[in-house]
Amino acid sequence: MRTSIATVSLSGTLTEKLTAAARAGFDGVEIFENDLIGSPLTPEEVRDRAADLGLTIDLYQPVRDMEAVPEDEFARNLRRAAHKFRLMRRLGADTVLVCSTVSPHAVDDDALAAEQLGRLAGLAQESGVRVAYEALAWGRHVNTYDHAWRIVEAADHPALGICLDSFHILARGSDPTGIEAIPGDRIFFLQLADAPLMALDVLQWSRHYRCFPGQGDLDVPGLVRAAVRAGYDGPLSLEIFNDVFRQAEAGRTAVDGRRSLALLQESAGLTAPPAPVVPTGFAFVEIATADTARIAPVLTALGFSRTARHSGKPVDLWEQGEARILLNTDTGGYRPDPSLTAVGLESPDPEAASARAESLLAPVLPRRRAPGDAPLDAVAAPDGTEFFFCATGRPGHSSWTGDFAPAPHTPGGIGVTRVDHVALTQPWHQFDEAALFHRSVLGLRPHASVDLADPYGLLRSRAASNAEGTVRIALGAGASPTDDPARPQHVAFATDDLVGAVRRALGAGARLLPVPANYYDDLAACHAFAPGELETYRELGILYDRDEKGEFRHCYTVTTGRLFFELVERTGGYDGYGARNAPVRLAAQRA
Amino acid sequence: MRTSIATVSLSGTLTEKLTAAARAGFDGVEIFENDLIGSPLTPEEVRDRAADLGLTIDLYQPVRDMEAVPEDEFARNLRRAAHKFRLMRRLGADTVLVCSTVSPHAVDDDALAAEQLGRLAGLAQESGVRVAYEALAWGRHVNTYDHAWRIVEAADHPALGICLDSFHILARGSDPTGIEAIPGDRIFFLQLADAPLMALDVLQWSRHYRCFPGQGDLDVPGLVRAAVRAGYDGPLSLEIFNDVFRQAEAGRTAVDGRRSLALLQESAGLTAPPAPVVPTGFAFVEIATADTARIAPVLTALGFSRTARHSGKPVDLWEQGEARILLNTDTGGYRPDPSLTAVGLESPDPEAASARAESLLAPVLPRRRAPGDAPLDAVAAPDGTEFFFCATGRPGHSSWTGDFAPAPHTPGGIGVTRVDHVALTQPWHQFDEAALFHRSVLGLRPHASVDLADPYGLLRSRAASNAEGTVRIALGAGASPTDDPARPQHVAFATDDLVGAVRRALGAGARLLPVPANYYDDLAACHAFAPGELETYRELGILYDRDEKGEFRHCYTVTTGRLFFELVERTGGYDGYGARNAPVRLAAQRA
Repeated sequence: MRTSIATVSLSGTLTEKLTAAARAGFDGVEIFENDLIGSPLTPEEVRDRAADLGLTIDLYQPVRDMEAVPEDEFARNLRRAAHKFRLMRRLGADTVLVCSTVSPHAVDDDALAAEQLGRLAGLAQESGVRVAYEALAWGRHVNTYDHAWRIVEAADHPALGICLDSFHILARGSDPTGIEAIPGDRIFFLQLADAPLMALDVLQWSRHYRCFPGQGDLDVPGLVRAAVRAGYDGPLSLEIFNDVFRQAEAGRTAVDGRRSLALLQESAGLTAPPAPVVPTGFAFVEIATADTARIAPVLTALGFSRTARHSGKPVDLWEQGEARILLNTDTGGYRPDPSLTAVGLESPDPEAASARAESLLAPVLPRRRAPGDAPLDAVAAPDGTEFFFCATGRPGHSSWTGDFAPAPHTPGGIGVTRVDHVALTQPWHQFDEAALFHRSVLGLRPHASVDLADPYGLLRSRAASNAEGTVRIALGAGASPTDDPARPQHVAFATDDLVGAVRRALGAGARLLPVPANYYDDLAACHAFAPGELETYRELGILYDRDEKGEFRHCYTVTTGRLFFELVERTGGYDGYGARNAPVRLAAQRA
Repeated sequence: MRTSIATVSLSGTLTEKLTAAARAGFDGVEIFENDLIGSPLTPEEVRDRAADLGLTIDLYQPVRDMEAVPEDEFARNLRRAAHKFRLMRRLGADTVLVCSTVSPHAVDDDALAAEQLGRLAGLAQESGVRVAYEALAWGRHVNTYDHAWRIVEAADHPALGICLDSFHILARGSDPTGIEAIPGDRIFFLQLADAPLMALDVLQWSRHYRCFPGQGDLDVPGLVRAAVRAGYDGPLSLEIFNDVFRQAEAGRTAVDGRRSLALLQESAGLTAPPAPVVPTGFAFVEIATADTARIAPVLTALGFSRTARHSGKPVDLWEQGEARILLNTDTGGYRPDPSLTAVGLESPDPEAASARAESLLAPVLPRRRAPGDAPLDAVAAPDGTEFFFCATGRPGHSSWTGDFAPAPHTPGGIGVTRVDHVALTQPWHQFDEAALFHRSVLGLRPHASVDLADPYGLLRSRAASNAEGTVRIALGAGASPTDDPARPQHVAFATDDLVGAVRRALGAGARLLPVPANYYDDLAACHAFAPGELETYRELGILYDRDEKGEFRHCYTVTTGRLFFELVERTGGYDGYGARNAPVRLAAQRA
């Protein structure tokens, strides 16, 4: 089906919005009235600009407060509408959105509403315009789609149809299956938006917290299925009022929206893109730094050894158990501080994973980055992190390890078995995009979003993992966009014996984040421990949490640049990340 | 009464919070448990630090999920509480906040709750601690203060009393007059918070949107009156969970909070600080710029003449009608771009206005800024703007105009009569503080807050005015803290004939903000105009609005530095600022 996006969903001037929509691959746009009014372009220039960009203008929106009013007021409304219909001809838009009235002068009289909407449609028809009538969730008398449809049906005018908006319908808890009873050719338009479930006044909820389908909690695919079953074949159009999107770079938002529509079409059974390929583990994490002097001693103290060197690039492989770190000094002079730039994911089918990513607008990176390298499928995440789809040492696949020549080293280690999770702070405006990306492109399951109290604001955190918990990525966001330059990152290594691992790391010179004594006093109040257990944690700076399934012990290194490390021990199926301890960790990191 | 603030209301480390509270003049603090747990200071060190700063520790908070549970769970809860009571002894805190339980294991059994709370109080008493039981608005079985009081009364233990929290009580719509029936000595603590009215889940509302008393919509003074009538004589303590406060500089927030408590005590009739002195008009606006080359031609084109020069400083007075501008080039080398640094308000009693400001913690500026200057009372607003309390040319008062010597000039002008309003963009974190400052310190009446759609985000705007509308200040805030460096400002001049004034200004070379043709097409659709009227607006770039009382015509100059000017004509009692046109203005300014 054709895809469209309302200009109100994007930031910037009308020109910037059109350009962003076209670049992201949308077929058309809805022109939001205020975007046109504020633009120095004439309607004809907007029409031509859109055409040059390959965009149709699918809807002009909105015309408000038209129907069910006294005749003198309706005459004024018709006059206003006539102006807008003439404007639409200049703009080359043939469908107008008319929202159900919120006017205090409107009466609760469906027959009058139908009669007046019919006359409005007659006037529209003379200008070659169709009227799509939509029930606002907070409409004064009409606030459900079935009510709007009854009025449209009663008006019985060929230029009058219905506009369905997933937010207005689902936010009120209406059952969308009733849509299937509406003749498809009378559904003139389909606006799509998701939203997180909130117990908030529906008008405020709609105006500030809408998000792209798949980023909230509403069953938008179910609604699309119902509309398609009814025979609707117009565009799938995104109409999002969102305070963050208003600030974010339009090109980025448009890609996010286009991806959400691709995923929505798949979820609704309308398309069958390459299926998700769920990764099974971490192949490696890659740390870039111009100078290894700061990071190499940290890795050594954590028990890692340099086991191999890339045959053609200044990249070292450090290993311990199944945990592998690539240390890349080829930074073009940038990144004096170590930062995590790439993650290798073990993929059952790297090529299929890459095809999936490409179908969902993920930037696919060149497969062969240097002559002689094993070809490797990779994509860039919204935050710039590169994700490689790997088949480490698997027969029939080229393995990235083939590019490395073993280096002499002494086996050892502190007991790290593998990477437990990586934590990546996202750009503030891209938090929801990142969650959708990790779900749709990487095939990970997003967990609930949680707030973490930092001394200087609430941070957001949301994990995404595979079902087995062998791939876990914690996505974070700072308290405000001003935090963006910092964007800390960390890698957590799993061990089966945290106490032993910490003792060995400390013995090897690791510098761990100090934990306040008050924390252990609180632990003593909250839990009963085996004799000596709490004292050991206190001595070593180990944090503790438990949930209904198991226990979690963890500790952190001090930060190097924007990067730090965590050692974790999970027992009994604990599935979290120690969120309870995050305020203590954050306070210590600020100190 | 003594004043206190919960550490959770302020950003930073525990040490930073204590310092900020002490500097703002609070008598005590509530220690929020997580602030202590995350602190490297021992409880004894916290106690000593607070004592050094002259702060008492009035409350330790919170202990949760204690009561109305099976005996085995209660035993574990008592064990946990015993730890906390020991901690409180070390901390020197003698009152603990116990919130009504939200545990799924708790039963709806007041007798059990009373019995267990009584046992808890007994344990507390052994440690010299009192238990203040509070009904959370979302408590599982106990969520109103009268219910909590019935349980406390039934438990009948001297170490068990009630904690009243204005948010929990007023957010649920409970009638606070029932508080008067509670014996004052059984009200162990009074926590105060306001909040804007929102149709939002009460837990989310409480955790993210509380604000200082006077900044929201709740009748906090009424509740305080009821508690005082009941005989409560403990501290008035602020406990604010607010996402913005968490990010804002603690010292600034603490002063804001302390000011709100001073105002609250006045509102509740507990204190009688110097009464508000409402200004009657604008005496002048002061623009600072190192070089007048950019701004002087703008003022000239707007019809202003340089009428006088300060006798001792490089400050020129420009006048037109009753509108006066001071152009100050004494910027110490800073401010190459013109910016509005001070506002002179006509005050019926400048000294009383200054005394009022000082009593509300406004930084009072030196009265005599240079030898020979007329003494002038002035305070600094939260955004740094200096407000002078003036008695221009009034007998019996020294007038700032006495410092100026007339300069030769040709009378003229374009028809500006006076300053209509000044618009000051506030630092993002200080928007609510600014509104409270303008109300309490300057005696202005705040209007409703509105959102204005800029191409790159929603801006907030809130006007404050005197009753006559002769002093109007529009407070704004950017879409996010990243907008802070820009912070545009403008001065609006009133005229009785905007069309004539604009023609004369254009004739004199004024550069006005271009208005898109589409705007006028929309005006034509929305309103009927006299013949030629709309064409005149279109020709001159005049914006138009009307409300139920009258009409508003206005236009803007292009921006110089961060400063621009507006010409406005109000007719028939129009009381707004053309918010409907703000998106058009903002889009044009971005272009």
